[in-house]
Amino acid sequence: MQALYKKILQKLNQSQNILILTHPNPDGDALGSSVGLYHILKSWGKNAQLLFSGHIEPRIQFLIEEIKYATSPQNLPKNFDCVLVLDIGDHSRIEHTLQHLSYQLLINIDHHPSNQGFAHLNLVDPQASSTGEILCLLFEHNYTILPLKAAYAFYTAIVSDTGFFSFSNATAKSLATASRLVATGIDTEAIVRHLQRSKPLALFKLEAEYLQQIQFSPHHKIAWGKITEQMCQKYGVNLSEIGGFVEIPRCIQGVEISILFKPSDEDGISKVSLRSNDPQLDVNAFASQFHGGGHTRAAGCTLPYDLKTTEQIIVKHIQEFFQKQKGFPP
Amino acid sequence: MQALYKKILQKLNQSQNILILTHPNPDGDALGSSVGLYHILKSWGKNAQLLFSGHIEPRIQFLIEEIKYATSPQNLPKNFDCVLVLDIGDHSRIEHTLQHLSYQLLINIDHHPSNQGFAHLNLVDPQASSTGEILCLLFEHNYTILPLKAAYAFYTAIVSDTGFFSFSNATAKSLATASRLVATGIDTEAIVRHLQRSKPLALFKLEAEYLQQIQFSPHHKIAWGKITEQMCQKYGVNLSEIGGFVEIPRCIQGVEISILFKPSDEDGISKVSLRSNDPQLDVNAFASQFHGGGHTRAAGCTLPYDLKTTEQIIVKHIQEFFQKQKGFPP
Repeated sequence: MQALYKKILQKLNQSQNILILTHPNPDGDALGSSVGLYHILKSWGKNAQLLFSGHIEPRIQFLIEEIKYATSPQNLPKNFDCVLVLDIGDHSRIEHTLQHLSYQLLINIDHHPSNQGFAHLNLVDPQASSTGEILCLLFEHNYTILPLKAAYAFYTAIVSDTGFFSFSNATAKSLATASRLVATGIDTEAIVRHLQRSKPLALFKLEAEYLQQIQFSPHHKIAWGKITEQMCQKYGVNLSEIGGFVEIPRCIQGVEISILFKPSDEDGISKVSLRSNDPQLDVNAFASQFHGGGHTRAAGCTLPYDLKTTEQIIVKHIQEFFQKQKGFPP
Repeated sequence: MQALYKKILQKLNQSQNILILTHPNPDGDALGSSVGLYHILKSWGKNAQLLFSGHIEPRIQFLIEEIKYATSPQNLPKNFDCVLVLDIGDHSRIEHTLQHLSYQLLINIDHHPSNQGFAHLNLVDPQASSTGEILCLLFEHNYTILPLKAAYAFYTAIVSDTGFFSFSNATAKSLATASRLVATGIDTEAIVRHLQRSKPLALFKLEAEYLQQIQFSPHHKIAWGKITEQMCQKYGVNLSEIGGFVEIPRCIQGVEISILFKPSDEDGISKVSLRSNDPQLDVNAFASQFHGGGHTRAAGCTLPYDLKTTEQIIVKHIQEFFQKQKGFPP
């Protein structure tokens, strides 16, 4: 790792025109690690550029408030000395963008276990909580004094990907790295405020109504609820804002699976989000029965029915699925 | 601080019969710091005893599953070499218990800013996130290798009092201390499961009803709600379980102060919990007007009125307080 650190730092030093890429719809780690790296390269006098595509959640937009970034490769120069691809483990997610560009060197910095190493230099550490954490360690190797804005962005990356140190990827190393970032004097309260204290009042009110109508299987192992068009209209909430609702019932003692039903943009098609607290209950496998997919603990599918019918079908099948997997009723 | 550390460690070494006390209805820090200290003293061969009074929230009971503790001073021996009072800044909270006991030495370890130092030895650090953090540093001074159970309890104490490092008391030092605790090999996932995924269903349902009746000041800067005896009875929830409710409205964009009104054990006396998102809005200062106290961001008081009257008084005064501090209406 030390030799790779040295090599990457050397190459960055030798490059002048540098592009930073990450996956579409960047999350807190993708955005935070990209922005942090950008501030470091700018402080080194580099001509660094950022490209973010897709949707950026309002609660993380504070990171890019004063930054210019491209939203499509068409808005960028064609030639770069170096392109850095952050928080991407799968070449296909960035292929289309790279086809528009020419570059001397491609560097991939990532923490996804599935990463095969598609770049010229691949700094991939699946033990790291986040790409932000990897970048901190990279630049500490060089005794780089992080610009405050870089530390701020990297801290955002780490707390985003570790769920404020509550996910299983929050290691002693993540906490120690975070501690050094906080010691630089960053305003951690502002980060908390943006990430955790910026729920629109309308969304809060819709959530309160949603929680009141959560339903449970007979032994409370499965919890589900639905959001209708009417509920969204009542509070003036956009459907794209309610994704987090499916997480809420996971906090209830005994609940192993949480399901959210919501309308899609098309009439007569409904969306289903699933979360599992139990590795034996693979909601990805369940969702794939309905041509959906995702991860073991978080998956989704769409059904060609209205909300009520979709709810009936999924609730029936998920209870059978639970019984089959666990050997007792939910 | 170093001399005080040394003195306390020396005294603990010289004592054989040691009692650990904390405040009634112990929270995660009170329980975690007491249990952690207990495991250290036991590993030193001391005759250590614990006293916990009042209600212990189910989600933190995992810390005391295999531990014997007294629930009243009547169940304890009369004489101790040393009594340690943890996470208590106010002598009156422990006076009644101490009257039943005789002891050579009283040690107070605490992080409340209002602490006046009522014991023979007072290790009080208002900069510390938690009493658990203070105890970690105390025993690190002695190069104590923490028993795994002690590290587990101290980590629980720190994450409880810092809201998983999201409150303003989560300093670089807290994170570094937590990192060293995680490095001992403790099962942090189990702690997360207990603290974040074990909400009793009845409490979840009460919370859903509570959220629906949250009220706001005209510009939504102050949010408040109340829990009545009737609401608790309806769901079979104990009053001591609802402490966390005051945190919830802090997630709403623009809300700077959150208030929870609840009954006390005595008729005609009501409890007020306050939280502030803004350092200019010192709820400790506000609560002290009503003979209450706490921290800048988290304080409380009791008023000799029923819930409704208490709500009217506090809501009126907090709005005036806000206007005075900020120069604009809430």
